[in-house]
Amino acid sequence: MENKSLVSIDQYGRDDVIRILDNAARFENNPNRCLLEGKIAATLFFEPSTRTRLSFETAVLRLGGRVIGFQDASTTSSSKGESLKDTIRMVSNYADLIIMRHYLEGAARYASEITNVPVINAGDGANQHPSQTLLDLYSIRKTQNGLLEGKTIAIVGDLKYGRTVHSLISGMSHFNPTFHFVSPDELRMPDEQKQFCDRLGICYTEQDEFTPALINCSDIIYMTRVQRERFTDMEEYERVKNVYILRAEMLENCKPNLHILHPLPRVTEIAYNVDDTPQAYYFEQARNGLFTRQAIICEVLGINHLI
Amino acid sequence: MENKSLVSIDQYGRDDVIRILDNAARFENNPNRCLLEGKIAATLFFEPSTRTRLSFETAVLRLGGRVIGFQDASTTSSSKGESLKDTIRMVSNYADLIIMRHYLEGAARYASEITNVPVINAGDGANQHPSQTLLDLYSIRKTQNGLLEGKTIAIVGDLKYGRTVHSLISGMSHFNPTFHFVSPDELRMPDEQKQFCDRLGICYTEQDEFTPALINCSDIIYMTRVQRERFTDMEEYERVKNVYILRAEMLENCKPNLHILHPLPRVTEIAYNVDDTPQAYYFEQARNGLFTRQAIICEVLGINHLI
Amino acid sequence: MENKSLVSIDQYGRDDVIRILDNAARFENNPNRCLLEGKIAATLFFEPSTRTRLSFETAVLRLGGRVIGFQDASTTSSSKGESLKDTIRMVSNYADLIIMRHYLEGAARYASEITNVPVINAGDGANQHPSQTLLDLYSIRKTQNGLLEGKTIAIVGDLKYGRTVHSLISGMSHFNPTFHFVSPDELRMPDEQKQFCDRLGICYTEQDEFTPALINCSDIIYMTRVQRERFTDMEEYERVKNVYILRAEMLENCKPNLHILHPLPRVTEIAYNVDDTPQAYYFEQARNGLFTRQAIICEVLGINHLI
Repeated sequence: MENKSLVSIDQYGRDDVIRILDNAARFENNPNRCLLEGKIAATLFFEPSTRTRLSFETAVLRLGGRVIGFQDASTTSSSKGESLKDTIRMVSNYADLIIMRHYLEGAARYASEITNVPVINAGDGANQHPSQTLLDLYSIRKTQNGLLEGKTIAIVGDLKYGRTVHSLISGMSHFNPTFHFVSPDELRMPDEQKQFCDRLGICYTEQDEFTPALINCSDIIYMTRVQRERFTDMEEYERVKNVYILRAEMLENCKPNLHILHPLPRVTEIAYNVDDTPQAYYFEQARNGLFTRQAIICEVLGINHLI
Repeated sequence: MENKSLVSIDQYGRDDVIRILDNAARFENNPNRCLLEGKIAATLFFEPSTRTRLSFETAVLRLGGRVIGFQDASTTSSSKGESLKDTIRMVSNYADLIIMRHYLEGAARYASEITNVPVINAGDGANQHPSQTLLDLYSIRKTQNGLLEGKTIAIVGDLKYGRTVHSLISGMSHFNPTFHFVSPDELRMPDEQKQFCDRLGICYTEQDEFTPALINCSDIIYMTRVQRERFTDMEEYERVKNVYILRAEMLENCKPNLHILHPLPRVTEIAYNVDDTPQAYYFEQARNGLFTRQAIICEVLGINHLI
Repeated sequence: MENKSLVSIDQYGRDDVIRILDNAARFENNPNRCLLEGKIAATLFFEPSTRTRLSFETAVLRLGGRVIGFQDASTTSSSKGESLKDTIRMVSNYADLIIMRHYLEGAARYASEITNVPVINAGDGANQHPSQTLLDLYSIRKTQNGLLEGKTIAIVGDLKYGRTVHSLISGMSHFNPTFHFVSPDELRMPDEQKQFCDRLGICYTEQDEFTPALINCSDIIYMTRVQRERFTDMEEYERVKNVYILRAEMLENCKPNLHILHPLPRVTEIAYNVDDTPQAYYFEQARNGLFTRQAIICEVLGINHLI
């Protein structure tokens, strides 16, 4: 079994992305398939994440596999001073696949280098969350009549620390997008991502106002949580928090194909009255995570010929 | 699959109760049946309850299903400020059945209104715990030669806050019972339940002494835990705690069909020397929980024709 | 199904040990076998231990069984004041096998006396950890060309509180070993174990220096963690901690068959440069735990005729 760990979305080229999304579509038609019979996946969540864990565990179970693991590191050997290396080597004795979330950037890459068991990065610090990116791409394609090419995407909220946002830019870069970055000054898109767009000739704008014009020209609005922890000035947080709230009224003149995505959990940044609009897609997006993760699991395990 | 969420025991009429108890009896003959092949149950315990969780998870696994979930809310998205609505809608993407325990009254009903996935209420605050009631009824019927009609039931301990006690009255109300409510003044049966009995013409007495006469006239003694947390006056707690202890010696002149139930966990209210009497039934009662919950799971999922 | 709970390594004679190790070897050839179809194992970890728990759960799942349980006692009924007896009797209603780790010595024996469900002791306080001992014996045999007889074993570190060390002496006692006990004065091997060796005529030496001569005459070096908690004098801890570190350089003149074991997790007592030496065996040792535990599970459940 070839080790094809998924550490970063940057590993995947255009064809890889399309192949995985096509396989995800096959799983959407039928998520219950005995492709992992006799296999065990370890879900190692050094940092808790119920949503991502349940999504991956469901993916494994519906493929006929079994799950072992832990939900947070507080009760693990690492709390006895064990190194990540030893923990990974220990788990490699038991599992056929390692799915890990860690609070340190680079943890997943490091793990993939010390074990022959395929590793899927389920989030490492503020760095990468590739399965989220792939389910975002799957959701965008699905809401845009099967097309990823040439879409206008407004990304709103915390663009500085938003792991999913940075990976989304990388993942979409194969498909000639136009980005509108909407954030408070304190949380602007880092230079690294803007330079990446410049190098690839990807158009983008930056603004701190969440304007009707912007909403009305977008194919996708990707909302993110603005986290209190990020602010030193609480007044500033309260101001910002209220500026970047999407409400149903704001969608009156939107394009017919507009859909709203959010990695979830959302707190206040999407008003509940948006949930009932045809543009709201964030719960379906979460559902797509199941199929996309099934496709990713098969990819890293080298399981092909899905019909 | 018709959504037949079980939120409250009051949903079930006499025939529903009997049908479920009959199915539970079928599962007692053979608990391992592949009725949930390819199905996933989510056990969402926003409030921990090992006993109830293990009982439900065993029920699912012995039916051939798989389990995802969490054991307490401290490491979940809800700790990030996610609403119950969003958590339930998220889980609805992954699971075919939701089994939830929540510290807020009404949480299970609310959940059942925002998802198409059947929800089983595994306890919501001080409100309802219907699967406990059904296993209590199953246990009463089994210990009374298959008869639920016309039984005399002494309910002892905390009758004010006891969730299981309130549901038991509702569940037994179809079967013409006589109740003896035994509690300290501070923990008397609330008017709501007494008025319910009055409306239905159900006989009951109230007393604060746990007398031999009472024990000797009962078919069932239902003991409950008197929780320290309920008392402001600790001296009063100590007095009460010692008044309502059932000891083997107290069973000398009981009716031959008397059996003792307890929702468990018990602390001091049943002396250990009772465990070895033929009247002790609380561990078998817990065991009946497995079969009853298997029957409930099939009921809410619309799985019929069990032989 | 005969109850053959494994509480202490002392239950097993020479033939029992050899039978179990032979079965473990069969599982190493093929760990995926449907021998627990329809069976449920409860992993009750009143004290957390990720490594042992994941190893046992993998063993059960690869045998086709299912798992219920808890990872630490903080969220269990016992935190509501339930006795161990009631918890065990409750779980006995649901599971076909109980695997328990408890912080109190004797907890596993007590559990095995109050239930008909087989109990495997996965560690009780500082007392016993028999599955660790059997995987140690399996590892010793495997690294010594299939021979357990007449080996020279250096045991290094905390010999006073080291549960695995005490059980190892008992388990090896059938095979005419020679022991070298290496520890700081504060953590010397207790008289009980030394008297045990004396009674059986087992040769041993005691020293507080970890010398080249000792390393060069050993067939097995069994390293253990020296835990800070054990010391009142922190200076003494720092001194001791640094004295008992095994480094690759120290293995230059070792015997060709020397292998290094460690129950893991290791902290500083084995330098990382040892990991790449042919003598390092502690990760394979952990892997052997899977096969050995599968053999133990079949032993206690009375599942024989493995081919």
